[in-house]
Amino acid sequence: MSQETFQRARRPEQKLRRQDAILSAARDLALRRGVRNVSLADIAGRVGIHKSALLRYFETREQIFLELTAEAWLDWVKALHAGLAAAAPGAGGLVADVIAQAFGDRPLLCDLIAHTPLNLERNVSPEAVRRYKLTSLGVIDEAADLVHGVMPELTQAECREFVATLASLAGSLWQIANPAPALAELYASDPALRQACVELTPRLRRTGEVLLAGLIPSRPGGNPAGRRLATYEAGK
Amino acid sequence: MSQETFQRARRPEQKLRRQDAILSAARDLALRRGVRNVSLADIAGRVGIHKSALLRYFETREQIFLELTAEAWLDWVKALHAGLAAAAPGAGGLVADVIAQAFGDRPLLCDLIAHTPLNLERNVSPEAVRRYKLTSLGVIDEAADLVHGVMPELTQAECREFVATLASLAGSLWQIANPAPALAELYASDPALRQACVELTPRLRRTGEVLLAGLIPSRPGGNPAGRRLATYEAGK
Repeated sequence: MSQETFQRARRPEQKLRRQDAILSAARDLALRRGVRNVSLADIAGRVGIHKSALLRYFETREQIFLELTAEAWLDWVKALHAGLAAAAPGAGGLVADVIAQAFGDRPLLCDLIAHTPLNLERNVSPEAVRRYKLTSLGVIDEAADLVHGVMPELTQAECREFVATLASLAGSLWQIANPAPALAELYASDPALRQACVELTPRLRRTGEVLLAGLIPSRPGGNPAGRRLATYEAGK
Repeated sequence: MSQETFQRARRPEQKLRRQDAILSAARDLALRRGVRNVSLADIAGRVGIHKSALLRYFETREQIFLELTAEAWLDWVKALHAGLAAAAPGAGGLVADVIAQAFGDRPLLCDLIAHTPLNLERNVSPEAVRRYKLTSLGVIDEAADLVHGVMPELTQAECREFVATLASLAGSLWQIANPAPALAELYASDPALRQACVELTPRLRRTGEVLLAGLIPSRPGGNPAGRRLATYEAGK
């Protein structure tokens, strides 16, 4: 960090502009090639600065992607607000649909979700992880509140569990749904491997519907499942 | 591959013994350090051979781990046979418990599941992926049959969906449940980050119960959820 190999952006607005240019380059490259195939050198090359210059703005490659993940979560929860603002109470199908679609429309977020615990959070300072976690946990809470507004018969904790489970699945299913081109061909051409093909949005929507239908009947408390289902029915 | 830098194992049983030694070294290292932190050089060093010698037995580092994943899946499904052989019909709680525990008891399998689509399948030959996929898809089918034996009211496809969803979740939740030591400390010490702590087995068990309870009531087909729940009840 002691070298002076480039023209430093000294004014705050210059600095912000440069940070934005870095994030934007990383975003474009990751969308096109997948997060795993984008290095710090690729990002620096795209911005037109040296790697060491880039490291004046971000700790590591992973911190750049962690920033993009936080940004993508905030954008994702906006789509939930838009899709669920006018939802009728009890519209579980709509809840599952809006959440699945919000993930399906955001391939970069889904790609990043899988990389977050595996790579991104492991190569940045604890302070950067803390900032990221406060954003992502806040977004999950906000999404849970939106679900709770539509499904008031669920508890807040159940809504949170529902959103967090779909988020985890979005990350892992996206990786399965987007194999390398050679593998996509292999799976499509071999009948024995058809099952390996997964479509993200319909699969998430269906799992969302199953979870919403199961949260109340499976509540712990010792009632036999039958009686709990009947109670749920009676309460409708 | 043209260099002759080591004493080649020429007899089939010698070759098998060397392959086993390589797999065993990779298994031990990955369990101790996590899959992401084990390189081909680490494995070769542990076996006491040169990297180039190791590449006579396996295509890449990723192929070694793909073999270990297949092996771990076969071991996982054995635990399901053992746990579900004597299950009473309709014992959904037991099904969720046995599957969650079978993942919880196999940290290496869970770690590998997340790496499989992200890394492992991307750096081996299509033929190696095909062999792996036939094993893993076969195991999921076998597990689905076991679930179907206990829950005959579910369709085969629903049982498959159930098992595949829990398998995806096991992979992603394990990564979240096992952060780097510095992060584990951070999450535990900061009340605002407590939600970031996840316990794998109870969380998988609970999600399994929710999914099993929701599969029938959420069946597509246009019946209102209420009527479908009532039909489910009446059929018991």
